[in-house]
Amino acid sequence: MKRTSFAKLNCSLAQTLEVVGEWWSLLIIREAMWGTSRFDDFQSRLGLARNVLSTRLASLEKHQVLKRIPVVERSGSQAYVLTERGWDLLPSVAALMQWGDRWVHHKIGPPMEFFDSRTNKKLAPMVLRSDSGAAIDPSHIEARAGRGANRETKLRAAQALAQRSARRNRPSL
Amino acid sequence: MKRTSFAKLNCSLAQTLEVVGEWWSLLIIREAMWGTSRFDDFQSRLGLARNVLSTRLASLEKHQVLKRIPVVERSGSQAYVLTERGWDLLPSVAALMQWGDRWVHHKIGPPMEFFDSRTNKKLAPMVLRSDSGAAIDPSHIEARAGRGANRETKLRAAQALAQRSARRNRPSL
Repeated sequence: MKRTSFAKLNCSLAQTLEVVGEWWSLLIIREAMWGTSRFDDFQSRLGLARNVLSTRLASLEKHQVLKRIPVVERSGSQAYVLTERGWDLLPSVAALMQWGDRWVHHKIGPPMEFFDSRTNKKLAPMVLRSDSGAAIDPSHIEARAGRGANRETKLRAAQALAQRSARRNRPSL
Repeated sequence: MKRTSFAKLNCSLAQTLEVVGEWWSLLIIREAMWGTSRFDDFQSRLGLARNVLSTRLASLEKHQVLKRIPVVERSGSQAYVLTERGWDLLPSVAALMQWGDRWVHHKIGPPMEFFDSRTNKKLAPMVLRSDSGAAIDPSHIEARAGRGANRETKLRAAQALAQRSARRNRPSL
């Protein structure tokens, strides 16, 4: 299916989804984070069709999330590894995974947990913090037009501000 | 297009994507976070086809991310608002958006920025922290089987641990 491209949208969430938002892409990235690097291993561990995997890997490579490196011990063979840009998706992956832990898998408990291998401490829930380090209550988050805002985004930011009063019935988390 | 369902996968990331991973879904959630609540407003602000919007809204409502409430000032009319479960996606949305700021929109600067409306301070980058509050270097993150792990996930966690040595060429962020 031909998708609408988000590439022209003046929104960094849309840009991220343009790169990693296709069905399966984030699960491929998760696999790469856990050390999977070979086509056949991605295929057997995720259980997706080879043509879909092939398309997704090519797209993630084109967007410099993954890169191909030669496998030293098997000449002609190649492995996919995350780039710095790819590894930088870890906070997003962790936040999405914690949401699934809380809201879908809360009865059975988390299938996977993250630890700091050096201190053996568990990853805390990802929370919004200000530059000063203080946690921000989600109900106090306000979106404002940034340096890269185009005219439409500036208008949307102004609308969002005006609509804040309509959010009074929003639960505090 | 009929999608492979992730619902049976023993992975909280897959479960989250099952709920919000369809093309457009997270942008609809972003719009709702900025105060958009009416079908026509979602449609005009996102510029997606009405039938796609309708399908996505129904799915997000089914998964209790959005709920419909009557619009008091216009009888018979309804609005979509985020549930507590929906608002809890804010850390994920913020993390994904920051990735786009850093890696796609870095030349023009962020189109939107988040602030704490009470302190006027900017949202800091979402970072991985342990329970003690200390930042965790992504290269020290280790995934371990959790309480809800099935047999396959336990095997995968053991494999991931064994593969950590293969990650030595991973850049530190």
